[in-house]
Amino acid sequence: MVNPKTVLQHLDELRALTSDESGAQRVAWSPTWLKARAWFDEKLKGLPVEHHCDAAGNHWITLAGRSEKSLVIGSHLDSVPNGGWLDGSLGVLAGLEVLTELAKKYNGEPPCTVRLVDWADEEGARFGRSLFGSSAFAGSHTIEADRVRTDREGITLETALRDCGIDVNRIGEAGNERKNIAAYLELHIEQGPVLEKLGKPLGVVQGTKGVERWAITFHGQEAHSGSTPMEVRRDALAAAAKLALEIRPIARKHPQSVATMGSVKTFPGIVTAVVGRCEATLDMRDLDAQVLAGMLREAKEASERFAQEERCSVEWAKIWSIEPIPFHPALINLCEEAIMETAGVSEQLPSGPLHDAAEVARLGIPTVMMFVQSLNGLSHNRAEDTRREHIEQAVIALNRLAEKTLTWIQQQ
Amino acid sequence: MVNPKTVLQHLDELRALTSDESGAQRVAWSPTWLKARAWFDEKLKGLPVEHHCDAAGNHWITLAGRSEKSLVIGSHLDSVPNGGWLDGSLGVLAGLEVLTELAKKYNGEPPCTVRLVDWADEEGARFGRSLFGSSAFAGSHTIEADRVRTDREGITLETALRDCGIDVNRIGEAGNERKNIAAYLELHIEQGPVLEKLGKPLGVVQGTKGVERWAITFHGQEAHSGSTPMEVRRDALAAAAKLALEIRPIARKHPQSVATMGSVKTFPGIVTAVVGRCEATLDMRDLDAQVLAGMLREAKEASERFAQEERCSVEWAKIWSIEPIPFHPALINLCEEAIMETAGVSEQLPSGPLHDAAEVARLGIPTVMMFVQSLNGLSHNRAEDTRREHIEQAVIALNRLAEKTLTWIQQQ
Repeated sequence: MVNPKTVLQHLDELRALTSDESGAQRVAWSPTWLKARAWFDEKLKGLPVEHHCDAAGNHWITLAGRSEKSLVIGSHLDSVPNGGWLDGSLGVLAGLEVLTELAKKYNGEPPCTVRLVDWADEEGARFGRSLFGSSAFAGSHTIEADRVRTDREGITLETALRDCGIDVNRIGEAGNERKNIAAYLELHIEQGPVLEKLGKPLGVVQGTKGVERWAITFHGQEAHSGSTPMEVRRDALAAAAKLALEIRPIARKHPQSVATMGSVKTFPGIVTAVVGRCEATLDMRDLDAQVLAGMLREAKEASERFAQEERCSVEWAKIWSIEPIPFHPALINLCEEAIMETAGVSEQLPSGPLHDAAEVARLGIPTVMMFVQSLNGLSHNRAEDTRREHIEQAVIALNRLAEKTLTWIQQQ
Repeated sequence: MVNPKTVLQHLDELRALTSDESGAQRVAWSPTWLKARAWFDEKLKGLPVEHHCDAAGNHWITLAGRSEKSLVIGSHLDSVPNGGWLDGSLGVLAGLEVLTELAKKYNGEPPCTVRLVDWADEEGARFGRSLFGSSAFAGSHTIEADRVRTDREGITLETALRDCGIDVNRIGEAGNERKNIAAYLELHIEQGPVLEKLGKPLGVVQGTKGVERWAITFHGQEAHSGSTPMEVRRDALAAAAKLALEIRPIARKHPQSVATMGSVKTFPGIVTAVVGRCEATLDMRDLDAQVLAGMLREAKEASERFAQEERCSVEWAKIWSIEPIPFHPALINLCEEAIMETAGVSEQLPSGPLHDAAEVARLGIPTVMMFVQSLNGLSHNRAEDTRREHIEQAVIALNRLAEKTLTWIQQQ
């Protein structure tokens, strides 16, 4: 039998080892992250597994089965600075417990190969490039754009990775790990309030929402706050403020859409000057590509209308985007079954946050994720939490899902 | 006869000496400012004047008259970084020309003493404390609050001033200069678009508007932009955006009121997070103290309403305020006469920006200012400009005003 208490004990150990009073500090490529990985290596001792890091720093643990067809369970040990105790690490440590249980149950040789992967740098906290390891694995990563990235101290990504034994020119070789993968499962905390509001411990993730991420700059005219009459101002902040409010009704037209203005910067940004330039960011997400495209169009039109009203101009520059990535229908059904058998209730919901699972699913590998309820919807924060009994249910459900998926793989 | 071409020539010289391609760089206490002052000292050679710096660094040039009663003409040579060629320096160099003319006309001994003052650090550009020298002169300056101010490099105000020979503990001694001052005149560019819109070269300043300057912080809840549904968000930016728009109708109820949100900062301020905390600044001005108080009250009420609507809280912290300071009725009339005789048209308007004249007027010293038209209302900017023929008219009108004021002082 899978033992969910072991997972809780491991999570507590890892928290004690890699957090301070501000939260988890397992930032990828940092000494604390390396410490977390070394601690994890110790936990593998005695298991009938082979393990190694691939060319992008992803850590693969393989329990060879009778068939080479592989079931992969994955997540990440890295955290944001001042992060939570569950984001990522729950998935890895629950995966470890499931792997351990399968090794035991099948006397070291399950019907299919079972692998656990600890993806490198899911968060992108230090260099601003999230899903680093899984995108290298998926071949969707062009290192050229990232080679010059630097952290706050000016250290390049290339240098930091070299110090961890990674040659950035060779990370594409992580794609070698794709061979024989038949299914991918990932357990993660929801990081949002939906399951808690519904009173449900677990949910099936339908897919990850598409994201449109843009930098929007309004150009007005800097002017003296004391000497410039209201009617002659060209206030870039006013145009941005109108947009900050307008994106909300745009998103609310669709039940699962979100739109966020997360950053506003004012220039010159002093108390005595009308804002001449205002830089804002916009992040819009939906599981439906057409809905997302429509939201983006509406926001652009609104920004142009507001710019005109305020006698400003507006520019849009794309930061990043990703299409919606639906998960596999058969695995969604298996996940729903596993949750119902464990908790008696389930919910299907999209994931707003991105996850490594999205990179795997893009390759056409059958993929599904399971969410466990987050308390108060908080994450990326030391206040991030989940009820311990829900964590236990999540481990049991993940184990059931893994068993069902092994059977499903054999039927393919 | 006063020679306005000399003033233009001096302004051009000073610009060539102390500007770069980004504009004027005469930031107080900087080497370039000291260079401007050294250049100015050269211009005093041959004039029958005594000159010295007071304990706060204000530079006083005295043409002793038959009476000790003094007419003071003042302005400032310091500029903001990347500033204009006229802000401050026009007043000092026009004052120098008037002083030179009066020395000539009265053979070195006018009926009253005439003094020119170049105030130290009017702009407060480096340490954020404007009207430094004139407030020390006026005794309205408490050094205790400013002692710890630092510039961007972390150099304290105390250290920077010591390097210029100023002991911050003694700046109050600048008050000694107040003795016998019977009137104060200041010529300045308008720094706004009013006179240009009216097609008038010169205007009489009725007084300086009162200012209420506040830091406003909205507290919401930081949340993940992907996982947090729109309806559960507590978006601090949304509350601030509403206020940024609402201050405009509040100000527009009164013909001369202005209200500006000049700075908005978002925390954590990243593309993937709902804004948990939003810090904004508000600057409100009017010449009528009751109008100003009413505007402030309305803005506070609105901010509380918006905070409630967005399930945020709001805090107000005063940055600074000053009451409206009306100028002297008799001098306003003399200024109106001088302008009418010079330009044939005049306009009375309040000053939105503060000036050293406000500190002088607060002491009860009869004071008036004259504005010359600014082009496009621009200032604090290398694009700051005024037609050369308007500068010439301003010098002639200032000279007329000085003559009229000398007569008026003798009648007191």
